[in-house]
Amino acid sequence: MTEEVLQALAECDCIVGYTVYVELVRGLFPDREYYATPMTRERDRCEWAIARAREGRSVVMVCSGDGGVYGMAGLVLELLAADEDAEGCGGVELRVLPGVTAALSGAALLGAPLANDFAVISLSDRLTPWERIERRLAAAAEGDFAICLYNPAGKSRPEHLRRACDVLLRSGYMREDRVCGLARNIGRDGQEQRIMTLGELRDYPADMFTTVYIGSSATRRIGEHMVTPRGYGG
Amino acid sequence: MTEEVLQALAECDCIVGYTVYVELVRGLFPDREYYATPMTRERDRCEWAIARAREGRSVVMVCSGDGGVYGMAGLVLELLAADEDAEGCGGVELRVLPGVTAALSGAALLGAPLANDFAVISLSDRLTPWERIERRLAAAAEGDFAICLYNPAGKSRPEHLRRACDVLLRSGYMREDRVCGLARNIGRDGQEQRIMTLGELRDYPADMFTTVYIGSSATRRIGEHMVTPRGYGG
Repeated sequence: MTEEVLQALAECDCIVGYTVYVELVRGLFPDREYYATPMTRERDRCEWAIARAREGRSVVMVCSGDGGVYGMAGLVLELLAADEDAEGCGGVELRVLPGVTAALSGAALLGAPLANDFAVISLSDRLTPWERIERRLAAAAEGDFAICLYNPAGKSRPEHLRRACDVLLRSGYMREDRVCGLARNIGRDGQEQRIMTLGELRDYPADMFTTVYIGSSATRRIGEHMVTPRGYGG
Repeated sequence: MTEEVLQALAECDCIVGYTVYVELVRGLFPDREYYATPMTRERDRCEWAIARAREGRSVVMVCSGDGGVYGMAGLVLELLAADEDAEGCGGVELRVLPGVTAALSGAALLGAPLANDFAVISLSDRLTPWERIERRLAAAAEGDFAICLYNPAGKSRPEHLRRACDVLLRSGYMREDRVCGLARNIGRDGQEQRIMTLGELRDYPADMFTTVYIGSSATRRIGEHMVTPRGYGG
């Protein structure tokens, strides 16, 4: 966590977020007003935060690594703008505080898989049609990006990672021996990382706490590390 | 800066890095051994760090936002591996500490331009052939990613941003009215952000302290913010 975020948490009145993330900070700052909602209750969470801010309270919305990457920063801005049309922004001041998203913290565990151009794609089709996800996977393969996958699997979609690997293999731009890696429970109990081939990744039982890395054509396995060179070594 | 990095700086013996970044931390930790080299002396810097570590000293290599994103983590790993072939790793222990890369800190200034799938591309052709950069730009446009550009211009290549915008426009996947933004001197004196169209970006005099954002087809301008919705609002 950045110093800037720690300071915001230390100075605020209310902390709101997805249940799992709120529980990660509650121990550090027990004497705050808390509001936590489960998955699919994102809008409710944001509206609560905006309502408290309108009352003049200082609210921190806790997301995962970075609130701007598959986080709530966008929805809060959309809801504030919608309100603005109706009754003015009511003196609500918003700051988005950047953080270390899982793409970066998982990459650090593996070595340097994202050290050259890369693409980040979520495999969750809850908010994005699967056809668009497939289109992005194929384009990322064509562009020879290193690829980081969020939400590679979930209870309701255990086969998404396998389907994604099949799209990449069918693209013709990579083979089963492409260097891949994954990081799980990053920065939490049970943290682990693993390097494997794309063929092995296709059959790996990833879960929703896993972040997946697919190398570019330049990515190499160096011992227990996954490295995409920038060319300095050459 | 994360707590983890501050702690590493507080506990280390030596701090090494690109001159500009070293100067940003020297004031905080004046009583360390410092070694700074200019651009193009990356390898020298890494070798110095490894040599000090082999002597049993604790060394922090300071990169920009995240040492794993266009940073030195990969080169250090490559050099350590090369040494390992010759004489063993000599007890050098390496940890990559993730940080907030400019893509994320600049995005926070602009709102939430990277809140859905995105691609990160450097326009520097010092280490990557320009043809490969063009291929990645075209693929990112085809995949309808939000795009973040690093190194949009430099003294020796003032026209790279214009050439990149032309590639995107020629791709047929975006028009001149595509929502774009940029952040400059992020977290430093002279920090600024700006939202504009792709047509305006094409003629913008970006410099090497500028990070550029090109929206996906879903990205919208909301007041002074740039937001790529995830779909929660719909």
